[in-house]
Amino acid sequence: MSFELSLNTGTTPTLSLEQAAEAVAESGLQHIGPWRHLLEQAGGAEKAASIISAAGLKATTLCRGGFLTPADVQGRRAALESNRAAIREAAAIGAGELIMVVGGLPAAAHLIGGSGDPADKDILGARARVAEGIAELVPYAAEHQVRLVLEPLHPMYAADRAVLSTLGEALELAADHPAETLGVVVDTFHVWWDPQLEAMIARAGAENRIASYQVCDFNLPLAADALKSRGMMGDGYVDFPTISRWVAAAGYTGPVEVEIFNEKINNQDARLTLETMRQRYEELVLPSLREAEAGVRS
Amino acid sequence: MSFELSLNTGTTPTLSLEQAAEAVAESGLQHIGPWRHLLEQAGGAEKAASIISAAGLKATTLCRGGFLTPADVQGRRAALESNRAAIREAAAIGAGELIMVVGGLPAAAHLIGGSGDPADKDILGARARVAEGIAELVPYAAEHQVRLVLEPLHPMYAADRAVLSTLGEALELAADHPAETLGVVVDTFHVWWDPQLEAMIARAGAENRIASYQVCDFNLPLAADALKSRGMMGDGYVDFPTISRWVAAAGYTGPVEVEIFNEKINNQDARLTLETMRQRYEELVLPSLREAEAGVRS
Repeated sequence: MSFELSLNTGTTPTLSLEQAAEAVAESGLQHIGPWRHLLEQAGGAEKAASIISAAGLKATTLCRGGFLTPADVQGRRAALESNRAAIREAAAIGAGELIMVVGGLPAAAHLIGGSGDPADKDILGARARVAEGIAELVPYAAEHQVRLVLEPLHPMYAADRAVLSTLGEALELAADHPAETLGVVVDTFHVWWDPQLEAMIARAGAENRIASYQVCDFNLPLAADALKSRGMMGDGYVDFPTISRWVAAAGYTGPVEVEIFNEKINNQDARLTLETMRQRYEELVLPSLREAEAGVRS
Repeated sequence: MSFELSLNTGTTPTLSLEQAAEAVAESGLQHIGPWRHLLEQAGGAEKAASIISAAGLKATTLCRGGFLTPADVQGRRAALESNRAAIREAAAIGAGELIMVVGGLPAAAHLIGGSGDPADKDILGARARVAEGIAELVPYAAEHQVRLVLEPLHPMYAADRAVLSTLGEALELAADHPAETLGVVVDTFHVWWDPQLEAMIARAGAENRIASYQVCDFNLPLAADALKSRGMMGDGYVDFPTISRWVAAAGYTGPVEVEIFNEKINNQDARLTLETMRQRYEELVLPSLREAEAGVRS
């Protein structure tokens, strides 16, 4: 089967891994993309793996590694350690893919609970450290048969979360490493606005780099917490049919993951969320994926 | 003189054109970039021209034309009419340049007081209409010796304000038209995050397209009204020395305009704003411009 719908647990943050796995299974889906803190809450990656398989599910991705931009030696060392642990966890739960949010500027680190030189706004330097960190982690990921997945984030998060803002930039960064160990994710919220999106999705496909397709909408006005501006497909301004056609035309046939940070959706009954996301997926996303898939095959 | 500091009246929105011109002159600056509604309040473009010249100032840019994305015939006709009027106004006040904010998706038009099909989220179609509108306006602008200046806006405004998000995309759009009639503006708030920024500033310089350099910072957390997240240089996360070097190395020597939408700054005493912006400009922007200018000359 292609294009199986998957729930990213960021969409249902009030649920434990066990609760989320149950809700996903009940709704008839077979894939789940957990966040790391749920593994920890569940008592570790091995326990988490049992929970996921007991529910009859498969883990698609693990969220998340990254944050490779600290400028100080200690910060960099801690970041690499954390990423190695994340790689081991991804392997343990059978998620072949670890999503990487690469990190922002040292000057903005305090905004996400970190620390860094308040004067360090050097985005080129931060990007160079991301490239170094990735180079260091790729062999370790390969050993564990985990694929690191670079996630370009919307440029509104360039200062505090990811100095990697476009799919094109992610592909440039990936170019030095094998496609089976370093992929990219196409997350509609983050990249829908990009004038080079069609070309870069095609390139990502040609290079076998598309590791994941994540769908969620771009809502306006932005939420008070900008991170929570993600919306249910159809509620915002993303042209899902067009982007979905591009993704399938590039040869992607894997799971399609729904990751929505949104105050209302995150606090409503998870069954309602799962039901709505399936409806919207079948209405706005899947038909275009299927149509383009048929075109690729023919 | 090169790199003369200019006040965009969006920074001092409580002032009339006359008050803004007086404040600018008192602070020792010689350039002002007015918004159209101030011309109207002043009794028209001719009157505005007298006010500006009576204060001993020169108008750098007029803000703003654009909003060329309506999908209906009537909306498009109205947009073109409004832009032709803006071109005449720019000519009347001696501003050689009309800043163009190209417009967003029809589905989001209601967010900025317009109307459009709530289902129309076709960003490719919207971009095509921008290209058509620009092509229609270029000859009219040339007749009036006004240069249209494409402003790529931060991608967080792609849905509601501008489907033009990068300098590279602006240059592609400009490529069909003469550089003397169609330029681009480099506004640090909008483009600081772009991985292609250095290359695209260099290209814009080589193609003689850099019509304006606007400086203001990118603040976090984003303001409740995302439009007002612009900050005084130094208060946010933009690396001004680096970007300023790129701009001057590309051969730009014109005015540097400060346009800040920010609740606190917009409501404080304009003299304080002018004083602060001059200090920050001389500290964070001007030295790098001068340094790179010297490199270009040598």
